[in-house]
Amino acid sequence: MNIKEVIQNAYHKIKDIDDKGNLASYIPELENVNSACFGVHISTIDTLNFGVGNYHDKFSIQSIAKVLTLTMAYNILGEKLWKRVKVEPSGTAFNSLVQLEVENGIPRNPFINAGAIVIADVLLSNLDNPKEDFLNFVKTLSNSKEICYSEKIATSEKSVGYRNAALCNFIKSFGNIENKPSEVLDFYFNLCSLEMSCKELSNLFLFLANDGFTLADNEQILTRSQTKRINALMQTCGFYDESGEFAFKVGLPGKSGVGGGIIAVHPKQYAIAVWSPKLNEKGNSYKGMRFLEEFTTESKLSIF
Amino acid sequence: MNIKEVIQNAYHKIKDIDDKGNLASYIPELENVNSACFGVHISTIDTLNFGVGNYHDKFSIQSIAKVLTLTMAYNILGEKLWKRVKVEPSGTAFNSLVQLEVENGIPRNPFINAGAIVIADVLLSNLDNPKEDFLNFVKTLSNSKEICYSEKIATSEKSVGYRNAALCNFIKSFGNIENKPSEVLDFYFNLCSLEMSCKELSNLFLFLANDGFTLADNEQILTRSQTKRINALMQTCGFYDESGEFAFKVGLPGKSGVGGGIIAVHPKQYAIAVWSPKLNEKGNSYKGMRFLEEFTTESKLSIF
Amino acid sequence: MNIKEVIQNAYHKIKDIDDKGNLASYIPELENVNSACFGVHISTIDTLNFGVGNYHDKFSIQSIAKVLTLTMAYNILGEKLWKRVKVEPSGTAFNSLVQLEVENGIPRNPFINAGAIVIADVLLSNLDNPKEDFLNFVKTLSNSKEICYSEKIATSEKSVGYRNAALCNFIKSFGNIENKPSEVLDFYFNLCSLEMSCKELSNLFLFLANDGFTLADNEQILTRSQTKRINALMQTCGFYDESGEFAFKVGLPGKSGVGGGIIAVHPKQYAIAVWSPKLNEKGNSYKGMRFLEEFTTESKLSIF
Amino acid sequence: MNIKEVIQNAYHKIKDIDDKGNLASYIPELENVNSACFGVHISTIDTLNFGVGNYHDKFSIQSIAKVLTLTMAYNILGEKLWKRVKVEPSGTAFNSLVQLEVENGIPRNPFINAGAIVIADVLLSNLDNPKEDFLNFVKTLSNSKEICYSEKIATSEKSVGYRNAALCNFIKSFGNIENKPSEVLDFYFNLCSLEMSCKELSNLFLFLANDGFTLADNEQILTRSQTKRINALMQTCGFYDESGEFAFKVGLPGKSGVGGGIIAVHPKQYAIAVWSPKLNEKGNSYKGMRFLEEFTTESKLSIF
Repeated sequence: MNIKEVIQNAYHKIKDIDDKGNLASYIPELENVNSACFGVHISTIDTLNFGVGNYHDKFSIQSIAKVLTLTMAYNILGEKLWKRVKVEPSGTAFNSLVQLEVENGIPRNPFINAGAIVIADVLLSNLDNPKEDFLNFVKTLSNSKEICYSEKIATSEKSVGYRNAALCNFIKSFGNIENKPSEVLDFYFNLCSLEMSCKELSNLFLFLANDGFTLADNEQILTRSQTKRINALMQTCGFYDESGEFAFKVGLPGKSGVGGGIIAVHPKQYAIAVWSPKLNEKGNSYKGMRFLEEFTTESKLSIF
Repeated sequence: MNIKEVIQNAYHKIKDIDDKGNLASYIPELENVNSACFGVHISTIDTLNFGVGNYHDKFSIQSIAKVLTLTMAYNILGEKLWKRVKVEPSGTAFNSLVQLEVENGIPRNPFINAGAIVIADVLLSNLDNPKEDFLNFVKTLSNSKEICYSEKIATSEKSVGYRNAALCNFIKSFGNIENKPSEVLDFYFNLCSLEMSCKELSNLFLFLANDGFTLADNEQILTRSQTKRINALMQTCGFYDESGEFAFKVGLPGKSGVGGGIIAVHPKQYAIAVWSPKLNEKGNSYKGMRFLEEFTTESKLSIF
Repeated sequence: MNIKEVIQNAYHKIKDIDDKGNLASYIPELENVNSACFGVHISTIDTLNFGVGNYHDKFSIQSIAKVLTLTMAYNILGEKLWKRVKVEPSGTAFNSLVQLEVENGIPRNPFINAGAIVIADVLLSNLDNPKEDFLNFVKTLSNSKEICYSEKIATSEKSVGYRNAALCNFIKSFGNIENKPSEVLDFYFNLCSLEMSCKELSNLFLFLANDGFTLADNEQILTRSQTKRINALMQTCGFYDESGEFAFKVGLPGKSGVGGGIIAVHPKQYAIAVWSPKLNEKGNSYKGMRFLEEFTTESKLSIF
Repeated sequence: MNIKEVIQNAYHKIKDIDDKGNLASYIPELENVNSACFGVHISTIDTLNFGVGNYHDKFSIQSIAKVLTLTMAYNILGEKLWKRVKVEPSGTAFNSLVQLEVENGIPRNPFINAGAIVIADVLLSNLDNPKEDFLNFVKTLSNSKEICYSEKIATSEKSVGYRNAALCNFIKSFGNIENKPSEVLDFYFNLCSLEMSCKELSNLFLFLANDGFTLADNEQILTRSQTKRINALMQTCGFYDESGEFAFKVGLPGKSGVGGGIIAVHPKQYAIAVWSPKLNEKGNSYKGMRFLEEFTTESKLSIF
């Protein structure tokens, strides 16, 4: 059975299961989405491109953008970046504030909100036109010109983003935010509002399967070692409080977003994006998780 | 450069660095060890066996034994096991008691002490002669008859094991320990006192690189899927509060012990054991970590 | 309206309310009590003795005993005692383990279990025959020879006392317990099993209203300043996570036990004991709290 | 020895001790104060007014203002107020964020910053001209027209008030703040900037010793029962993580501020204000605490 067949089989098997997830409710605008959408797209380093379902539709990538800001910041600061944020898995959201307190405002990793806010602050300090420059970086990586922020989503998130405002001010109180909290938050909410399709996403993330080089232009985005490290980080911290479960069941580095998207990377082989808007209780796409479990089990392509 | 050369080069490079670690001080007996010892041994699924330095010397494997009890308990209970313990990374030791409280006595994973104590309780309930049966299981896996518990180490650890006694009683108060705390602890301290050499260790762990089958007898210990899951767990939770760092720098599933041993597994390829008694501030072998970082960088054999 | 009338009125008003409390369920033996019992007894420093209802019946004083062990330990060690335990209110049970961790095993105050266990350890180190000597001390204070431990209650509590065992071992791991945990716990469970009547209790606690002197023999148990301090401690820490509420509504120093007893002291004036076995959700006697609120409101005898 | 002599003796005894405190450093402007200042003033309900030292000098009352906003909010909302904030002592600052999380954004009491911010929000929702109305309320209570906010202090505090901004946004995320965080914080920083002298403070707080009535005009500010409750709250929660110690050593309801002021109330008798800018490690005036301990010991006027 080749990889296309594995994907098609898994897609059809999962498409019709009872979707026990729920739409993200905390960002008002995210509820305005067709919850029946379900798309998958794979891009391999030997140039296979294959999609099923709604793989052309754009959706809000949300936290998946944290890998992209991290990549850009890592590219700029190099290893100095790790003075501002650590690389250890975090326990529950519940603990994150205590840990910030105990660890003097240094977030546990760049994928919890606290860490992603610090990364946003790093970019804000180092880019001339942060929103524009970051968008251009994303366009280059994905080899697509049709990627934009969603003003509507950003505004919607900002209108209820009190917890992120709390985190940002808390970290600022420890001196680990350089810019004004209001500016950091404005930039942060914009990042999360990026809209992309499964196809664009899997194309974009292919550089992480390709030792840090874009496939289209063979441009080096990160060193081999840095690429390995981003993958390791996605493996240990990419799925909130379900990172262990994901490693356990799927066994690939990856990152999810509350828009229902998941990206997973198999080093040296492929990047695969899946999108289904309803989330399980840990905040990850219900069908997306199920699909990837099925996919790696059948394809035997887990890294473990 | 072949793998033997990579190991030899890495060994000699790390052997002479300034060892910034310290001997484990909390178990009195563990301080009576020659801190200059340094050994490495690799076993590959294509039957290479190669060691450097003190790879024949026995040392106290301590927490590495947690992978072995987990394997045995998983073998017995199957997926039911995960009702007793989760598979998520834990934050700091600091948080573990709070997390037990919030999560009703279900430990975050089988490699933190709380989880390993629950696993010990599972074995106690399911084995006729727990200590003997477990030892035989270990002997079978490693294809070596010369493995024993160290009574001295077990007694030494017991004499200061108040924190583990606290954990065990705390979990018992939530109903997640079936046996008497004193009996669970007695068994637990024994497990951790197992003594093995790097050679025995890498031979033993080879089944995790070999889809769950022992190499010597081709005996199936775990299913393919269970094997993958143990590897995933070692990846996300194997190094206390340095699991992220280890994934980040080394990029292999593994497990460390405060005796200074580390085992790492490259699925489908090899198991490698390293031993150097002095620990870094996170409780992992200082030189062991450095060696493995050097080894995977040079061999390009990380999974990421 | 004199004080007897206030008590009688309050007693009859509260006697017939709907008792929304529940019997303590975590100690099996404590459930074998007549939940309709309701007794009150006041002892004043001008020698009034007055009771209503079941004030002659014995009940398990449980945590009220913590004031008595504290008194005895304070008497023995003086101000040095405060190196072993602090005098600050604690938040929820939930936090107590974290606080022990952060504060290196020094409990927040002598009335949370952690603190009372440390006090038990102090007595164990300083008394020749701890159980006997403490019982004699209590008999002297209360001017009653008919006070005993309940072996049945102590055994019942011990059979489920895993959380206290956890606390004791945890504190021991920080070095703040001198004796063996099993011996400290044995003594501790015995202390809590003391049985007394409301009459005996209010007689006993009168020394705290009388500047530290027993009323019967004018024997000095504590200095004036020490007495003031015990009262202050009961005020701020006497009612678990309802200490603020009790100060807010009743306004007297006091201490409750899960046997349904409450003692309250008005310095320079009186001690009043009330008993009704059903507990509110914070673990304090439902009717007892209501009675004392009514009593201090009507008598205008709050300290505030 | 009459009360004036007790005060004079205590004042002179404490004046010359080595001041081990330090000026509050976290609000830049608060460091610009003469640290040698030391003043005391008592106001009794039988109209004694007596001061020593710098009792006419104005200082920043900071957190002492929390009692005044609480009084005003309690006056407006009555017992409904306690749905927004509890009355239990809090543990350390360290725990406050966890407790907010566990208790769904309901602060433990109105004197920790979280609680005082909620009280500020209540006033903001209920007053036409919050800053002006509150100032007038304070002027009425103290019978002094010369009380003002310090714009300089408010601005200074705002410039570094990230932790309060974090708290306010965090509580808002739970829905327990009605107004915009920026407006609540602006009002809150103003409240804390009130400047008063010891004389004005002790005059003002006399209503809490006088069953809720101002002494000058016999105007009822709070009911008898409400007054008792505010006193109880000051007793259990008035001194950050030193509330137990203060009850233990001084034995009066009271409130401190990081400007170095302390107010203490003896119900039915007097209010006493003391000011000395250097703070002990818990954030309370070093000499102020020492003076009050000496004063209640010598005057035997503790409530315990």
